[in-house]
Amino acid sequence: MSAGPGDRPRMLLDCDPGLDDAVAILTAAHYGDLVGITTVSGNVGLDHTTRNALAVAELAGLDVPVHRGAARPLVAPAQDAARVHGPTGLGDAVLPEPARSASPGSAADFISETARAVDGLHLVAVGPLTNVALALRNDPDLAGHLAGITVMGGSAGGGNVTAAAEFNVWADPEAAAIVFAAAPAAPVTMVGLDATCQVLFGPPEADRMRASGAPAAALAADLVDYAHRRCLEAGRPATPLHDAVAVIAVTHRGLFTMSRRPVEVELRGEHTRGMTVVDDRPGTEGRGTCEVVRGLQADRVKELIIEAVTAAPAT
Amino acid sequence: MSAGPGDRPRMLLDCDPGLDDAVAILTAAHYGDLVGITTVSGNVGLDHTTRNALAVAELAGLDVPVHRGAARPLVAPAQDAARVHGPTGLGDAVLPEPARSASPGSAADFISETARAVDGLHLVAVGPLTNVALALRNDPDLAGHLAGITVMGGSAGGGNVTAAAEFNVWADPEAAAIVFAAAPAAPVTMVGLDATCQVLFGPPEADRMRASGAPAAALAADLVDYAHRRCLEAGRPATPLHDAVAVIAVTHRGLFTMSRRPVEVELRGEHTRGMTVVDDRPGTEGRGTCEVVRGLQADRVKELIIEAVTAAPAT
Amino acid sequence: MSAGPGDRPRMLLDCDPGLDDAVAILTAAHYGDLVGITTVSGNVGLDHTTRNALAVAELAGLDVPVHRGAARPLVAPAQDAARVHGPTGLGDAVLPEPARSASPGSAADFISETARAVDGLHLVAVGPLTNVALALRNDPDLAGHLAGITVMGGSAGGGNVTAAAEFNVWADPEAAAIVFAAAPAAPVTMVGLDATCQVLFGPPEADRMRASGAPAAALAADLVDYAHRRCLEAGRPATPLHDAVAVIAVTHRGLFTMSRRPVEVELRGEHTRGMTVVDDRPGTEGRGTCEVVRGLQADRVKELIIEAVTAAPAT
Amino acid sequence: MSAGPGDRPRMLLDCDPGLDDAVAILTAAHYGDLVGITTVSGNVGLDHTTRNALAVAELAGLDVPVHRGAARPLVAPAQDAARVHGPTGLGDAVLPEPARSASPGSAADFISETARAVDGLHLVAVGPLTNVALALRNDPDLAGHLAGITVMGGSAGGGNVTAAAEFNVWADPEAAAIVFAAAPAAPVTMVGLDATCQVLFGPPEADRMRASGAPAAALAADLVDYAHRRCLEAGRPATPLHDAVAVIAVTHRGLFTMSRRPVEVELRGEHTRGMTVVDDRPGTEGRGTCEVVRGLQADRVKELIIEAVTAAPAT
Repeated sequence: MSAGPGDRPRMLLDCDPGLDDAVAILTAAHYGDLVGITTVSGNVGLDHTTRNALAVAELAGLDVPVHRGAARPLVAPAQDAARVHGPTGLGDAVLPEPARSASPGSAADFISETARAVDGLHLVAVGPLTNVALALRNDPDLAGHLAGITVMGGSAGGGNVTAAAEFNVWADPEAAAIVFAAAPAAPVTMVGLDATCQVLFGPPEADRMRASGAPAAALAADLVDYAHRRCLEAGRPATPLHDAVAVIAVTHRGLFTMSRRPVEVELRGEHTRGMTVVDDRPGTEGRGTCEVVRGLQADRVKELIIEAVTAAPAT
Repeated sequence: MSAGPGDRPRMLLDCDPGLDDAVAILTAAHYGDLVGITTVSGNVGLDHTTRNALAVAELAGLDVPVHRGAARPLVAPAQDAARVHGPTGLGDAVLPEPARSASPGSAADFISETARAVDGLHLVAVGPLTNVALALRNDPDLAGHLAGITVMGGSAGGGNVTAAAEFNVWADPEAAAIVFAAAPAAPVTMVGLDATCQVLFGPPEADRMRASGAPAAALAADLVDYAHRRCLEAGRPATPLHDAVAVIAVTHRGLFTMSRRPVEVELRGEHTRGMTVVDDRPGTEGRGTCEVVRGLQADRVKELIIEAVTAAPAT
Repeated sequence: MSAGPGDRPRMLLDCDPGLDDAVAILTAAHYGDLVGITTVSGNVGLDHTTRNALAVAELAGLDVPVHRGAARPLVAPAQDAARVHGPTGLGDAVLPEPARSASPGSAADFISETARAVDGLHLVAVGPLTNVALALRNDPDLAGHLAGITVMGGSAGGGNVTAAAEFNVWADPEAAAIVFAAAPAAPVTMVGLDATCQVLFGPPEADRMRASGAPAAALAADLVDYAHRRCLEAGRPATPLHDAVAVIAVTHRGLFTMSRRPVEVELRGEHTRGMTVVDDRPGTEGRGTCEVVRGLQADRVKELIIEAVTAAPAT
Repeated sequence: MSAGPGDRPRMLLDCDPGLDDAVAILTAAHYGDLVGITTVSGNVGLDHTTRNALAVAELAGLDVPVHRGAARPLVAPAQDAARVHGPTGLGDAVLPEPARSASPGSAADFISETARAVDGLHLVAVGPLTNVALALRNDPDLAGHLAGITVMGGSAGGGNVTAAAEFNVWADPEAAAIVFAAAPAAPVTMVGLDATCQVLFGPPEADRMRASGAPAAALAADLVDYAHRRCLEAGRPATPLHDAVAVIAVTHRGLFTMSRRPVEVELRGEHTRGMTVVDDRPGTEGRGTCEVVRGLQADRVKELIIEAVTAAPAT
């Protein structure tokens, strides 16, 4: 496979669309060289996340392969977030039935093959980490072929599904433990809940998106509105778009501050299963293997996301 | 037992002296009506903590009973913090052998009896919670006889012994789980590591203590100096005096801000055992049973502690 | 306290009557020198178990102190076995309201005091181990004052409440862990489910008991009948009387074969919490600290129990 | 792929040779239609197990593809059993360097493809279950394409690596949990330690093998001798050949008695991690999804294994 245009990072996006996943697809295609999408069960079931990925790609005119991945977590019972993302995963948006189908071959196999075919591939994983974990264990040399793995998941503060755990890691903690352990062979960056929640969207941002007139922007605006209503119900004034922030952390890394810390995924806790335990004690800085996002330039990140969904994708 | 003078809170201090425990004894005696001290194994073994409590009380001219408590945690293996507090628990301070011995009767039994004999008793627990847990389970009606239990322990941020756990809760997590579950029958206040570390001491504060000339102040200054040296070695510029802050949270509660939150003690986690899991998600405020200290007027608290150790105890 | 008559073992029975606990009281009083009874919540709540202990003692003409103990497990949520033992704990038996009340002082304190007052005291614990654990931790020297602790609880085979766990240990696993760790300071004998289920009772045995005409025997017969009906419903042809077997393991130890094994109580397992993990691998024999009952002369044990309930107690 | 000759079961053997794995390969090729071998890290590392599988196949004149699988467990840390199987996994046997290499494609992918290509395929897994778990999660429809999965692993009695856990399940408990949960879509049979240890080998059996003169039989005899010496050191008089028994449980199922039981793999226990928790309580028979081997005709099974290694393989 030939190199991407200019210095746009080559990315493979593993996702479970999902409201913010859809925005992440648009963002990745705008700023990066999106070489493929893999789907996983998570926010909703695998049939929905796969159909949604296909439909969003088609709406945005993206010609990228979409591969179906894992239909359930490695060990944890299957549980979704349809309460947040709506029964189909895209809120109340209704997209045309996609013309294309998923490409043959599993997500994990596609990840393995692409990592070898594409130099400097960034794997951006914004759903439960089942596919990435399967790929890493099925292909022991995979990590060395990746420029990095950027995860939207976990938290260096509290959780959302439970007091301690964020949804993506909580949904498949064993997979997350496998992925975080891929460092340092593959550099791992954690874009946690505490980081993504610094960039908030609501009606003003949705209106700006909608004003652009592009179909993808109209969809993104609808997704923001839907997410915003769910947030209001939960007592939050605005909505994050977690997954899109993780994409920006790859394409515009300079807007983010990070610290290298030991991170463990708790698998056994009664109250903490699925928690990402970040060691922030004095003396641990630099001792760990995971780059943990600590801060970001929120206004710049927000503008980049709005720009991505309102512009035509750069493919 | 007659009431304390004025409105000074009646307190029973359960502790494991311990550098900051010693300062807590002085602080409790100065601002409160200290009706007794119970000792527990923790920072160092029970023989040391009991002797230290007796010696500090004697040095400060306090006439309060001291009762020996648990020699080890409920279930967890015994582990100390002698690396921080020195082999005897009081750094390199050398106190005269106390003239008095511990009073007969276990700490747990003394807590039960005192709670019934003294109206409005505040139980201030600044070591591992073994004694308090034993008292609560051995005496099912105890909680209803207490004005409150204030715990120095846990954290609403990260830990110190492990990435997630603070020493006192980590040292006996099962006991901590029992104590936190005493609410709402007994109001429970958690003065965690994230709160106590907002009040830092070092050579300037030690010098001010020493300047007072009182023997107790000289001891406190030595303890601060010792703790400060340990902190420097660990890459921290100044030392907290955790336990003394918990006492002030009883005697000067108005200097502290709190939020009522669900708090669970993690008993089973591989990386999180002994963590106090505070649920800070939107919507949980007020739903829990534990008052979690979130902020405090650090300068005021520091001055109060210095004043307590430099003044003659008000007994 | 003066020595018991002849070589009858001095016993303190900690129990949660409970059908088989009631038979155990009768058995202990017949063959041993029963110096006291302590009650714990377990098969039913503490009010019921205490009243039942008093009523059974009175019916049998026993003049022994009965002390109330823990109203709930140390850490585990309170759960009973009323489905097996009936809502009051004694099946459908209706005993006269006892004339006596429980003696003052907690079960744990009574255990501590009695262990010091009575040479060679056997503590026979046939309910959840909360009281014994509280006594051991509240009184660090207690173990050395006991001739032994004999526990009806756990299993070297499968469980009854869960696939892996027996009720008494499952009901308060943390307490059980504390008690099993009392060895070797106090010799601990485990009379597990796999042992007690070798001695089965049913209508023929109930009839023999009833034929004796003694009030206590009539009660025992009613309890056997009730337990037998519950067993039939669960697909078992006859009923064990677990707790009475544990008493015989003290009074007629020669009828039992034991092996000394490492035994751990699993506290954290998802499917195994409350399991007694007996290490039966080659090479562990004699390496452990717990005497695990492996076999018993079932016919002899059965006859001894029938004889105990049909005879007048030997006090 | 065409059907196997006669009614010989078509088998894919997933293994980690390993002394008894080597005998299992010979046994599978003799009685079954062995369509392939996949290797996994376990008794020794993946390089050794793969080389050993190739070398044993070559020695026995087997023309079957060998595919490399997982180099480490899913989540558990990698740990081997070289103490039992020798540093290379084949005791002190020295086999010629195999002429063939492993076939391209991962073990998991080969399992998926073969299950679709071969009707009635029996997957016989006699090492840690990493490969099988990866295949099941990477290919959500796989289970429905298998005639069954027969596992040498776990125990309905105690363990060998720990008091509760058998090596293969303990080495990758998460994988085992995935595989046991494949039932009922794929029928799962558990040939546990308690079953395989009923068939014991020693010098007399080794001598009979060696007398046949066949190179494979000489190897098998050497492996038995080596295993026997390790057993003697551990206080056991003879050695099981676990993996070969699992093969016979497929090829001669009539020699085995089974009961259908709920089986859970414990992932979180402190003392029980990796235990297969078989629910043997009354009323669970038939309620579960796993066929658990309870008994076997030991003499017949032993003769079949000796016959397999002494005869020329029937390929």
